[in-house]
Amino acid sequence: MLEKINSPKDLKKLKIEELPALVKEIREVLINKIYTTGGHLGSNLAMIEVTVALHYVFDSPKDKFVFDVSHQSYTHKILTGRKDAFIDPAKFGSVSGYTTPSESEHDFFKVGHTSTAVALASGLAKVRDLKHQSSNIVAIMGDGALSGGEALEALDNSVLLNSNFIVILNDNEMSIPENTGGIYSNLKLLRETNGEADINIFKAIGFDYVYIDEGNDVVKLVEAFKRIKDIDHPILVHVHTLKGYGDEFATLNKEAGHYVMGKNYKVDPTKDTYKKIFVNKLMEHIDELIMINASTPTAAGLSKEVREKAGNHYLDVGICEPYAVALASGIAKGGFKPVYLVSASFVQRTYDQLNQDLAMNNNPALIIVYDAGIYGGDCTHVGQYDIPLISNIPNIKCFDASSKAELEALIEFGIKEKDFPMVIRVEMASVSYHNSLFDESHPFKYHYVSKGSRVALIALGSYLDKAIKVKEILKAHNIDATLINPICYSSLDEELLNELKENHELVVTLENGCIEGGFGEKISRFYGASPMKAINLGGEKDFNDLLPSKELFEKLGLNEDQIVKKIIENL
Amino acid sequence: MLEKINSPKDLKKLKIEELPALVKEIREVLINKIYTTGGHLGSNLAMIEVTVALHYVFDSPKDKFVFDVSHQSYTHKILTGRKDAFIDPAKFGSVSGYTTPSESEHDFFKVGHTSTAVALASGLAKVRDLKHQSSNIVAIMGDGALSGGEALEALDNSVLLNSNFIVILNDNEMSIPENTGGIYSNLKLLRETNGEADINIFKAIGFDYVYIDEGNDVVKLVEAFKRIKDIDHPILVHVHTLKGYGDEFATLNKEAGHYVMGKNYKVDPTKDTYKKIFVNKLMEHIDELIMINASTPTAAGLSKEVREKAGNHYLDVGICEPYAVALASGIAKGGFKPVYLVSASFVQRTYDQLNQDLAMNNNPALIIVYDAGIYGGDCTHVGQYDIPLISNIPNIKCFDASSKAELEALIEFGIKEKDFPMVIRVEMASVSYHNSLFDESHPFKYHYVSKGSRVALIALGSYLDKAIKVKEILKAHNIDATLINPICYSSLDEELLNELKENHELVVTLENGCIEGGFGEKISRFYGASPMKAINLGGEKDFNDLLPSKELFEKLGLNEDQIVKKIIENL
Repeated sequence: MLEKINSPKDLKKLKIEELPALVKEIREVLINKIYTTGGHLGSNLAMIEVTVALHYVFDSPKDKFVFDVSHQSYTHKILTGRKDAFIDPAKFGSVSGYTTPSESEHDFFKVGHTSTAVALASGLAKVRDLKHQSSNIVAIMGDGALSGGEALEALDNSVLLNSNFIVILNDNEMSIPENTGGIYSNLKLLRETNGEADINIFKAIGFDYVYIDEGNDVVKLVEAFKRIKDIDHPILVHVHTLKGYGDEFATLNKEAGHYVMGKNYKVDPTKDTYKKIFVNKLMEHIDELIMINASTPTAAGLSKEVREKAGNHYLDVGICEPYAVALASGIAKGGFKPVYLVSASFVQRTYDQLNQDLAMNNNPALIIVYDAGIYGGDCTHVGQYDIPLISNIPNIKCFDASSKAELEALIEFGIKEKDFPMVIRVEMASVSYHNSLFDESHPFKYHYVSKGSRVALIALGSYLDKAIKVKEILKAHNIDATLINPICYSSLDEELLNELKENHELVVTLENGCIEGGFGEKISRFYGASPMKAINLGGEKDFNDLLPSKELFEKLGLNEDQIVKKIIENL
Repeated sequence: MLEKINSPKDLKKLKIEELPALVKEIREVLINKIYTTGGHLGSNLAMIEVTVALHYVFDSPKDKFVFDVSHQSYTHKILTGRKDAFIDPAKFGSVSGYTTPSESEHDFFKVGHTSTAVALASGLAKVRDLKHQSSNIVAIMGDGALSGGEALEALDNSVLLNSNFIVILNDNEMSIPENTGGIYSNLKLLRETNGEADINIFKAIGFDYVYIDEGNDVVKLVEAFKRIKDIDHPILVHVHTLKGYGDEFATLNKEAGHYVMGKNYKVDPTKDTYKKIFVNKLMEHIDELIMINASTPTAAGLSKEVREKAGNHYLDVGICEPYAVALASGIAKGGFKPVYLVSASFVQRTYDQLNQDLAMNNNPALIIVYDAGIYGGDCTHVGQYDIPLISNIPNIKCFDASSKAELEALIEFGIKEKDFPMVIRVEMASVSYHNSLFDESHPFKYHYVSKGSRVALIALGSYLDKAIKVKEILKAHNIDATLINPICYSSLDEELLNELKENHELVVTLENGCIEGGFGEKISRFYGASPMKAINLGGEKDFNDLLPSKELFEKLGLNEDQIVKKIIENL
């Protein structure tokens, strides 16, 4: 059946009783594709029926679907002209994992962070109303996204629209791990009462509300959506689905089935990773800590086993990154050591809390920013902006380790220290085993790895390994470069930087992050009025969507031979 | 009576029937003080009874009060040893307008941004529980703060505490302007039903709930708080107060009475301000725009008259800065021009929405960031971090005008352009009247104001006036400096910067913002490998709390003679 469907128009030609067969076909396609290439499994399997019913009843793109996170949009892509990317193995890589306007007129926003759909969709609705147009605006969000402040702000505001506005709440009873937060007790009550309970958070803020228990019954969904289409006021449609529906592994292992790696993905379980290293070190001290995470424990390296062992020293706060930082500040003020584990991509959601709630109060929370660094792929999940974001906030001291021993030393230091909020940046990089140069009694000092002359390489974190290779190549050019491991990137070691002036003419900074607003620019500013030349190497201010890492490094001039060439040119 | 009260202990010695007289005294003190020096009037007058009752019933600092925004904490300060700052005119400047831990053990957090109290307090509660201590943790927030995502995330999480946790919701029926959002229809219903309505958002997420209608009756409050003290689970206490209670102006003019200027504050209503200029220009085009503001219209220059005139082309979204940015992205995608007006201090709350919801989608929203710049005073409201925050995000083009004509040209351009999200930075500065150098057909080009040699001053926005003075003084040293007005600060004009190499040896950047991560550092990076010297002048990465502007500029070396000295030293 899928063969004949190249657009939503083709879907509408089917009889309603044919839809279950189509759903079955799509489910087979998705299971095959996702297990082959990797991808979001559970949410996409849960949403097949809802998506087919939406496209059957509504008229995309005149009617506008806005997907939250959009990691559940695979069926939407299949139905809107992009099925080959899911059926034909040769084209498996041809579309992104998220809605992407450049792929299709049926996609309105590039989205990969959560809790944004209602807000974005409400903007479309505002314009529709102001232009006296008519169309259905449909925001599609999961129950996990509901905990995020941006979603709650948006629901509170969009209910005031005096016009058509439809929020589909796909309640599959799971965030990535279990949901957490008081709202979920209300969702449970609503499920248990078939939506009839008087206590209803959506009605409390003014939404019209319907409940659909059979969220994986495409015929029932079509009937329900037909009743809702062209409604003249905001309504929230609470649809109960089963995460992973149709796949035994994904339904029995909802957390593990949220995202699966492809069949060619191999990982050596005995191999060190920086995540394992910091988790192990934190667990050694778990009685002294409260670990905080915003519903991404697996990505943070916190397995179920670790979480259970941590007990009430582990807190999942739901998808509430801003809350997590404020909570950490409160815990630190209360006299305990909070450790907030957050990816470089999601720490972006917390700037004001870092600045005001935490840094201004100088409370000694420890924040571990993992998955940091420059890498290719989808621009919704990048790790290169955390340095400009955090290191320009007063009081927060930022560190990046170049090796296992250094990371362990930093974690030990961070757990004990009581004088400032601290960030340990953990890059997505393979583990190195240099000795630690970190000196607890002078935590902000940079360190010589080796002393040379003419050229000094100041290489942060994992880029020390890159600098070591550059130094090797430079030897062939009769240059004995000095090598420096700064560890701390939120301040300048002026003493060392001044020393370099004696017998160096060029300083090269290397950082695994965006150079604009970053670490290297501070060094360039420091040397600005001196004869010392400086070059800053790292990421550029550009989304570079879907660029593979290899091409990206080439574009940035970050390969060792490119770096050497640049150095030689500037001597 | 106030004479005898130097701490909460003294307050507790009073009989309950003596409290109304004390309240009356405090009210007189506050009215006199606030109208003299300026300050938050309405919220403090509303909260006298609640604060007296809290300190009478609970045992601060063992019991911990965490004030949201803390602009309503004046009575708390009076009762905790800081009354002289409100009674003695000679000491009127001796305490800050917000809770400040360095002032008193009764203050737990420095706070000035909204919607944070429940989150911060929940951290204190977590630690209390983990340490098996007992105390009451009391978060005190206004109804306005309730719309903020951070507050909603925190309520959703803190209700899971299996222990004492008290949220006092001071409902005076006003944010700064009228409240907006669906939540407020529920608050209204609860007020009208004396808290009895079944539809109750707080109960929906699991809070125990009590309603106190007589929020300005100190005796009733004491009785109610006694029943709540030492409660063993989270409870939300909905207290109905009257904003501005006891002052005719403040009760009749709730928005104007939110914050009043001191009696010595003089303003010439005929004088230009940058706010008037952008508001006038926007209103000329109001049919083409949707202006968005997050409940700070007066601060944004949007008087009641302007808002009424704008009609449905003006949207107040409540205190929801993140939502405002996502909404703007949606509106721009929908084909209308959104103009979000936000202070430099509060734009901090929106980094991820700027990066993901807006910039990544490259939707042409216009954001006006006002009250930007370096100034002294309370560190909770500063204007110097917006450049590092925003200008290092891809796609967003950032501009800063040096004069009235330039600001008008930028606004005209921003209203029309369809290619990128755009920020116009509006500094807290007196208006200049240079001709506009902005060139719509080359919007990212820097501009020569005058061509000289040896030294080039690249001065952003209002600091062009500073550079003009510096250039004058340099003449006396036989230096004919080049003067450059960049206007655009999110990218480099490499052509012009290369030209400067011909006959200049030193480039000096001046920006009215933090230099770390800012504009000047990009220039220093550009010249890093060339013989050109560069100096970056601007703000430093430091909170500098309560430092007067004059001292701050001196500390930063931003006075013209200091700048000249630095230039001469570096030639």
